[in-house]
Amino acid sequence: MAAQEPVRRPGGRNARVRTAVCEAVLDLLHEADWDDLSIAQVAERSGVHQATIYRRWGTLGALVDDVVTEQLTRSSPVPDTGTLRGDLEAYAVQVAEDVAGPLGPVFLRAALVGTRPEGEPSKQVYLLERGTQLQKMLDRARDRGENPPTLLELLEVILAPLYFHAMFFERPTNAHHARTLVDRLLALSEKK
Amino acid sequence: MAAQEPVRRPGGRNARVRTAVCEAVLDLLHEADWDDLSIAQVAERSGVHQATIYRRWGTLGALVDDVVTEQLTRSSPVPDTGTLRGDLEAYAVQVAEDVAGPLGPVFLRAALVGTRPEGEPSKQVYLLERGTQLQKMLDRARDRGENPPTLLELLEVILAPLYFHAMFFERPTNAHHARTLVDRLLALSEKK
Repeated sequence: MAAQEPVRRPGGRNARVRTAVCEAVLDLLHEADWDDLSIAQVAERSGVHQATIYRRWGTLGALVDDVVTEQLTRSSPVPDTGTLRGDLEAYAVQVAEDVAGPLGPVFLRAALVGTRPEGEPSKQVYLLERGTQLQKMLDRARDRGENPPTLLELLEVILAPLYFHAMFFERPTNAHHARTLVDRLLALSEKK
Repeated sequence: MAAQEPVRRPGGRNARVRTAVCEAVLDLLHEADWDDLSIAQVAERSGVHQATIYRRWGTLGALVDDVVTEQLTRSSPVPDTGTLRGDLEAYAVQVAEDVAGPLGPVFLRAALVGTRPEGEPSKQVYLLERGTQLQKMLDRARDRGENPPTLLELLEVILAPLYFHAMFFERPTNAHHARTLVDRLLALSEKK
């Protein structure tokens, strides 16, 4: 069968498998903890054979990482509001909502599981993809004559504290906190 | 036996059990991944009964979290150099070394495992303890007539990016990066 399998195309069998498996993982993560999840459960829920899931993702860790990362990327498109502050605020508030939501800890944990030497470097892929989108946001600001921060400054001053709060603080982060971080980033840019 | 067990005191049986178990966990974490670790292995390596370990820590996650947190806290005492910049730089450089080291990912992962609703809130305890020490560092600076940032600013501008790099960047963070973050924090304080 593998020899006759057609090239991957949107809407084809591969896409259907992916959609079914992703939905099953998200469902299961809303019902139970990651530690109670198994590929067998995902197979049962999605109707996709275990062997197919193993062939495609390899491990439960890689599967969860892939699904959660895509979900968060899709639910948080990089905004284009017409001003740097508008873009940064919309982006920061969305991230704050995401990390305070049920998938936040799963996403962060998946990133850490990926730091194992034998793990998939999916965290890199996520950051590259997201970084490319955010760089475009900053480029648009520069084209409008604004004075944007660097991508690294954006990641360190906005994204890092939001993740930090999700990891270490009992009280979830919120939109007000996100806006405080945007103020800080813009204050740093003004100093330059 | 429990009824006759004396109050916990340093150097007593409890302390000896703790030392043996902590050393065993650290040894094992240097040899193998967290996922390959078990309480049975810790018992064998430390010479402490499994039942004692379960009674004291409950789960492997709580045990690893406790050991790694204490180790990182002990290896990174909050410095007292006589100036705010000196203290911040010494602290930031030490944290950068810690998170780039072998226990960094384990510590961060332990914090995330602790975000589960049924988990121990050990991350809170860590942050409270560390936060108290760092607040004293900032209080010393104020007593000397310096203009220190708030504790939250310190955590967000220095600690959060160092953790973020350890989680998402392939290249480990370093002393130069740590000093850049201190510069940023002091620049923000000067603006106020």
